Amino acid sequence: MNAPDAVAWNEQGLVPAIAQDAATGQVLTLAWMNRNALEASIREGRAVYWSRSRNRLWRKGEQSGHVQRIREIRLDCDADAILLLVEQVGGIACHTGRERCFYRLLDGDTWHETDPVLRDPAAIYGAGGQGEHK
Amino acid sequence: MNAPDAVAWNEQGLVPAIAQDAATGQVLTLAWMNRNALEASIREGRAVYWSRSRNRLWRKGEQSGHVQRIREIRLDCDADAILLLVEQVGGIACHTGRERCFYRLLDGDTWHETDPVLRDPAAIYGAGGQGEHK
Repeated sequence: MNAPDAVAWNEQGLVPAIAQDAATGQVLTLAWMNRNALEASIREGRAVYWSRSRNRLWRKGEQSGHVQRIREIRLDCDADAILLLVEQVGGIACHTGRERCFYRLLDGDTWHETDPVLRDPAAIYGAGGQGEHK
Repeated sequence: MNAPDAVAWNEQGLVPAIAQDAATGQVLTLAWMNRNALEASIREGRAVYWSRSRNRLWRKGEQSGHVQRIREIRLDCDADAILLLVEQVGGIACHTGRERCFYRLLDGDTWHETDPVLRDPAAIYGAGGQGEHK
């Protein structure tokens, strides 16, 4: 697979990947990919990231079912950022049970939570589950 | 200013910042902020980044006029990514003269340029200009 050769991987072999909802235009999350993650994403047509907190490949939705089906994969001018247009299965991208990870809005000098929890994470991952995390 | 205290700055003191066009929903660019850049962005109401290639604060549009006026600043669940909703002055975010930086689309195993150059970078920055760069 040659497409990953064009990517300017950082010193940790990673590149930031933005997931945008293809239907609503909402920016859902920013996660990270290594080469294996990008290759798996291309091959499988679903978002596969590198989980920095868990130090392993992360097939988004592997526990939650909240798979991101890929419609488009884009690369930026400097080849050091990726944009995924995705179909967000279940309408929940964030491990907190919200539609998107960017649920805090700056208001004056304070971050306010603007987005509701659509589903309790305990219900998504089970009471003892650590969840799917970046 | 307290809002930057909530941000999980990386080991270089940076956080990735996504700029999204508030009018079109288009994801324009991914750049980086340090604390000074975020504070300046909040204070001035325009996107101010940290240019990693030029190693200095970068007031987006400082040469090109392609200022990004900020409508919203959002923080993600892990506080390690920022989303700006912006009004893109001049309709050009990319230093290549395109609307957005994500002008390359994966098609099979090849990246294809899908977006036109709206204005010659030489006309934006002058023939000898290095341009505004991440």
